[in-house]
Amino acid sequence: MNKMNFNLKQYLKEKQELVNLHLKMILQQYEQKRELVLAMSHSLMAGGKRLRPILSMASAEACGKNFELALPVSCAIEMIHTYSLIHDDLPAMDNDDLRRGLPTCHKKFSEATAILAGDALLTHAFNVMSQPEQVFKNFPNSQTRIKLISRISQAAGIQGMVEGQMLDMQPYQPKENDSLINHLKKIHALKTGKMITVSVEAGALSVGADPEMINKLVAYADKIGLAFQVVDDILNIEGDPKIMGKAAGSDVLNDKMTFPAIIGLDESKKFAKNLVDNALDSISLFDETAVPLRAIANYIINRDH
Amino acid sequence: MNKMNFNLKQYLKEKQELVNLHLKMILQQYEQKRELVLAMSHSLMAGGKRLRPILSMASAEACGKNFELALPVSCAIEMIHTYSLIHDDLPAMDNDDLRRGLPTCHKKFSEATAILAGDALLTHAFNVMSQPEQVFKNFPNSQTRIKLISRISQAAGIQGMVEGQMLDMQPYQPKENDSLINHLKKIHALKTGKMITVSVEAGALSVGADPEMINKLVAYADKIGLAFQVVDDILNIEGDPKIMGKAAGSDVLNDKMTFPAIIGLDESKKFAKNLVDNALDSISLFDETAVPLRAIANYIINRDH
Repeated sequence: MNKMNFNLKQYLKEKQELVNLHLKMILQQYEQKRELVLAMSHSLMAGGKRLRPILSMASAEACGKNFELALPVSCAIEMIHTYSLIHDDLPAMDNDDLRRGLPTCHKKFSEATAILAGDALLTHAFNVMSQPEQVFKNFPNSQTRIKLISRISQAAGIQGMVEGQMLDMQPYQPKENDSLINHLKKIHALKTGKMITVSVEAGALSVGADPEMINKLVAYADKIGLAFQVVDDILNIEGDPKIMGKAAGSDVLNDKMTFPAIIGLDESKKFAKNLVDNALDSISLFDETAVPLRAIANYIINRDH
Repeated sequence: MNKMNFNLKQYLKEKQELVNLHLKMILQQYEQKRELVLAMSHSLMAGGKRLRPILSMASAEACGKNFELALPVSCAIEMIHTYSLIHDDLPAMDNDDLRRGLPTCHKKFSEATAILAGDALLTHAFNVMSQPEQVFKNFPNSQTRIKLISRISQAAGIQGMVEGQMLDMQPYQPKENDSLINHLKKIHALKTGKMITVSVEAGALSVGADPEMINKLVAYADKIGLAFQVVDDILNIEGDPKIMGKAAGSDVLNDKMTFPAIIGLDESKKFAKNLVDNALDSISLFDETAVPLRAIANYIINRDH
């Protein structure tokens, strides 16, 4: 992989297609006409960016190994991400009608079906991690799989994504030694950060990377995860609704706590840029195998949706 | 364990206490005042029968091994069972106000919190299975844990419990070669049967039982799982609401499909008795180590709640 001729757009497209193909294969094991499978498929195949699985595979590549070993866990992570979107969109939560430009799962099907489709995606993600041989040619050994399941169930659960969604729904109650901006950082670290970090970690674990390498990759991931959120907030103000698949300015309308609302638009942009620079520093000792990870970090602040 | 002096009531109590103690230890790792942890704890510690974990441990004992090896997976199964109750009780699903004599999770907290508490319990069940060393002294090796996760995620997901709940919510549409009674059996096999069967299987797998033994135990479990459902339907008509913690006759009021409604009360009782006899036949070659499993089978048709 040469820095000079690396084409990120092409790279993202290839990896997206690989993930899409395997997610499809996972669901194709089940009767396609069943309402539950239709609902799972509606949300899973709605054309997301596949950022988490791509990060996971790029991390495996950065370790100089066969990234296909990371494909099963990458698909499992995307299933967990999709379940969280389905549940977050529910009327009792964020009550969203649109997701990725399509009707949300509960709008297209029903609330009950959406709850169950989310449950089934979450449950089946652990099936994919424990039984990858049903769909994948390459996968890590049992011991590595157990490690992956333990790390991912931690990032997705009580101390991770689910708690982040809880905090995001609760009104902010100022505490001593806790500023508004720290509170917002904490919500993001839990709600999206931990899953992004574990995606990068899981890719490296899947190929048996050594702990020192993993630490550097985790430091990279912690920073780009937060940068991704800051840019999301910025795009919600400046983005083109046609490209984003949802209305701009919705955060302001919904009175949401965002980085621009707290520290201003310019400071938010500087903050995001700073995070990405730090992320790149964390993996500066990696050689050309980390070109995709570097390109993804830069893409995160330059994207338009 | 001697047939003559085996005391089932004492046995169930001891095992329940063991499960309760460990479920408590699992949650005690997290800040107790957090809304999410409170909601998980409310439903998890509401005093269920702990039938699934007890079956799992009794199955391990039947194989003549240290049942404590089955304790981690037993607790994980109870967490999955509890998550399914929380989600089934939601307004969009069965819309129940009471569970085990207490307010349901969404009544006590909020709908959003109940959805997330269920999600967190399901996610954390896989953490307990993959990282049992955090709470348990005895646990199976990685390879066995992967097998357990694969079997349980199958029983709980697309082809198991979640699909059972989907079917249970959909109106019955007669198909060729499918009678009403077969349809009801299918719903129960998916909604509750597979998790009961996998509980028994998981106990045996945890202690490294040989496949022949496991097959017999699975045959036992398939039958008592269905018998349990049939008796549930009977108790809904004949049971004492004070003992059951919910109103009798609610199935009739809600126009629910039940065994008594389709084949009558007497036939339902005969059917349940027959299932239990067959279950006992399946494990007739086990020695005194299977005394608890035999007693549980008999308890299932003689229970009052």
